[in-house]
Amino acid sequence: MATAASAPRVAVGQGASMCARARSRGRRVRWIRARGIDFTDAGCFELAYAPVGESLIPSGPWKTIEGGVCAARGFKVAGYKAGLRAKGTRADCALIVADDDATCAGIFTTNVMCAAPVTFCKKQLAGKTTARALLINAGQANAATGDAGAADARETSKALSEALGVAEEDILLMSTGVIGKRIKMDKFLPGIPILAANVENSTAAAMAAATAICTTDLVRKTAAIEVDIGGVAVRVGGMAKGSGMIHPNMATMLGCVTCDASVAPDVWRTITSRAGAASFNQISVDGDTSTNDSLVTFASGKAGNATITDVNSPEGKLLEQALTAMCRGLAKAIAWDGEGATCLIECNVSGATDDEDARVIARSVICSSLAKAAIFGHDPNWGRLACAAGYAAPVKNRFDQKDLKLTLGPIQLMDKGQPLDFDAVAASRYLKETTGVHGTVVVDISVGNGPGKGQAWGCDLSYDYVKINAEYTT
Amino acid sequence: MATAASAPRVAVGQGASMCARARSRGRRVRWIRARGIDFTDAGCFELAYAPVGESLIPSGPWKTIEGGVCAARGFKVAGYKAGLRAKGTRADCALIVADDDATCAGIFTTNVMCAAPVTFCKKQLAGKTTARALLINAGQANAATGDAGAADARETSKALSEALGVAEEDILLMSTGVIGKRIKMDKFLPGIPILAANVENSTAAAMAAATAICTTDLVRKTAAIEVDIGGVAVRVGGMAKGSGMIHPNMATMLGCVTCDASVAPDVWRTITSRAGAASFNQISVDGDTSTNDSLVTFASGKAGNATITDVNSPEGKLLEQALTAMCRGLAKAIAWDGEGATCLIECNVSGATDDEDARVIARSVICSSLAKAAIFGHDPNWGRLACAAGYAAPVKNRFDQKDLKLTLGPIQLMDKGQPLDFDAVAASRYLKETTGVHGTVVVDISVGNGPGKGQAWGCDLSYDYVKINAEYTT
Repeated sequence: MATAASAPRVAVGQGASMCARARSRGRRVRWIRARGIDFTDAGCFELAYAPVGESLIPSGPWKTIEGGVCAARGFKVAGYKAGLRAKGTRADCALIVADDDATCAGIFTTNVMCAAPVTFCKKQLAGKTTARALLINAGQANAATGDAGAADARETSKALSEALGVAEEDILLMSTGVIGKRIKMDKFLPGIPILAANVENSTAAAMAAATAICTTDLVRKTAAIEVDIGGVAVRVGGMAKGSGMIHPNMATMLGCVTCDASVAPDVWRTITSRAGAASFNQISVDGDTSTNDSLVTFASGKAGNATITDVNSPEGKLLEQALTAMCRGLAKAIAWDGEGATCLIECNVSGATDDEDARVIARSVICSSLAKAAIFGHDPNWGRLACAAGYAAPVKNRFDQKDLKLTLGPIQLMDKGQPLDFDAVAASRYLKETTGVHGTVVVDISVGNGPGKGQAWGCDLSYDYVKINAEYTT
Repeated sequence: MATAASAPRVAVGQGASMCARARSRGRRVRWIRARGIDFTDAGCFELAYAPVGESLIPSGPWKTIEGGVCAARGFKVAGYKAGLRAKGTRADCALIVADDDATCAGIFTTNVMCAAPVTFCKKQLAGKTTARALLINAGQANAATGDAGAADARETSKALSEALGVAEEDILLMSTGVIGKRIKMDKFLPGIPILAANVENSTAAAMAAATAICTTDLVRKTAAIEVDIGGVAVRVGGMAKGSGMIHPNMATMLGCVTCDASVAPDVWRTITSRAGAASFNQISVDGDTSTNDSLVTFASGKAGNATITDVNSPEGKLLEQALTAMCRGLAKAIAWDGEGATCLIECNVSGATDDEDARVIARSVICSSLAKAAIFGHDPNWGRLACAAGYAAPVKNRFDQKDLKLTLGPIQLMDKGQPLDFDAVAASRYLKETTGVHGTVVVDISVGNGPGKGQAWGCDLSYDYVKINAEYTT
């Protein structure tokens, strides 16, 4: 890889705690501070790494490890402050470079108003199955920017191609920030060779990159796991960002997963698609499907395993499980960090006709503004949960309300469609205690005897959500 | 009609200003008070009748008149306080009685968890095309109440049948309030003969009924119009309630329209269905489709016009226009009075493939939490409007973002998919001035050259929405 020798050497963790200085989000911030959680050099809450990323990864035949997107062998990254944000001193761009061609898959927003980088990536990945680099900027989403925005994406790609010495068709782009604003190219372009010159494979670099891509996020989302596949230790690392405008449809806000498995391109695309459907597509903060949702997954092949060519082989299934676990951990971290949230809400639906039906019902519950506000207010208003399950549509097979069973945390509220006498004080206490530690409020719903199961994750609706979005300056 | 002679005579406007005493909803209440608007005997804001109901009715070949649901000839109504609400002194039940069999149509929620009165009404209207009485209670929604709730509905109907001396199959029911709670039958049943004994055809009675059915509504929604059909003055009156859990799907929260036209049952059902689709189905406050949404329309035939038997005749079309105007006025009043709202948001979409596509896009825009919060904050963040138009689905024909044209009030923001330079200060001023008088923020969107047009109405998202729903006690 070519590096710009004249570029100034910068700390990979450059950028600072804009999170803390520029914002105050009430209870959540106070909760974080009360626990004495400090900021890393990388400029965001230390909290980000441990409980938000790793702790939300479902358990399975893997262990969590350090390193974020750098945990997987074959990748180098950097974060840098080019000066794209309206204010603050935090880094605003990140670069991930694969040492060699990496198998690559991507899923993107279904929004008609998709951003220029989304159109760019879809075109790139339509032509080939590998990629070398992913460049991400925060500050401006480069969405609804017309022809000028498309030209900016091409110019960015050209600049990175020259800085890295890789072909333009090997480059992918993501943007996040204000819609309708062009990227500040006068500041971004000079930053690109600096980023390219400073990539490295280290935990610090991975943390810096994960911090640089945040916007209204209070914590960064990053994690890594290691799984034994056929006697070979395969590593999966990931990072994501997102806090508002979260209601992904076929992708997430911004997510990037690195893996060092050797895997056939068609297998990798299939399991990426399935993992995205079971994770990022099952979260919502505010029901708004972004213009920029993008998930890109790389597999470098550096782990040394025998190439996985069958998605249904034991190795293929295990890789899919591991990728799904990573995506779920990141997706849940986004919902946990939903704008203004005081908790993560997890809805588990069982007994549906099939998994898709169960997922639709689960999504409907975690999207309900009324249920979300009730949980924020520690009000066990279970009628709103039942109501949201009931209007879920389009479900292939509508359930019968006589089959509904509903449990909030440890407390059963409804069975066979009949409301139960329950201890409302205890139910309220469960909500108060769970939100008090920014924990997970669990809603279990059974809608019948079918085999379908599904999960979805959201967050509560607080005053701070309104405050953040009423005051987010265009 | 039989009346219970021994029942105590009560003022039709019984119940008082629970609105004012028990609640404080910040800016909106202050705005109402600052204008010296007083309360009527009926117990709600005087404001309710004039600007919220009538002023939101689209203009057309009709004039607004007094009388609400009593404006149409052939109907008597009453409101009464039976003591169903958790607190406050407001009336909580209303009765509408047709002097003779009235042609009747109803549309109801698509929610699987539909309330007992919804199931009851659907069964009643499946069997016949006329009805005599509609009884409405506030306080408990009788939804998610299982077999006991269904039994309560039947017992209510039986009691009303006896009090009025009409057959049980001629009775319709609606409920609104907390989900999962049974109606306080010990208080409701004694109130039924009192209601039956006190119905009358008067403006005061219509206002009392419209007030009695409110829950978190700050104002009642009622209006009446008169239209000349074939030389005969036909009157249409209506009332509705709704403020939260408003995202109707095939119906509204609670709406009742009376009309004195003579019209064939199939024609009446057809135009009721169309009017509902163009009005109540095009509003949203919070995206939550209620368990109780119900619209019932009566046509008494007392106007003396020649019976309308063809929906496509000039008379049929005019009656449909008048009914649609009434439904739109009531639906807009619900969105105007959305929980915590400081304005009504109207989105007009044109250039779509067909009307249904245009309606879907318009609904998507007025449902966006981010756009709603931005408008509350006087932030002309038009990217959120474009984004919400873009994720509208399922639209038969996705539009091309190059065709998007977007205008906020008088200010054009985007043309041919390209952002325009616009005066952000003036745009913010437009939002500030409009919300300052609880006015209508207008968003005009063109998505191409197709013939499809559609409108939708919503409201902004404020701190008070969260406050109301976090503190609404189960």
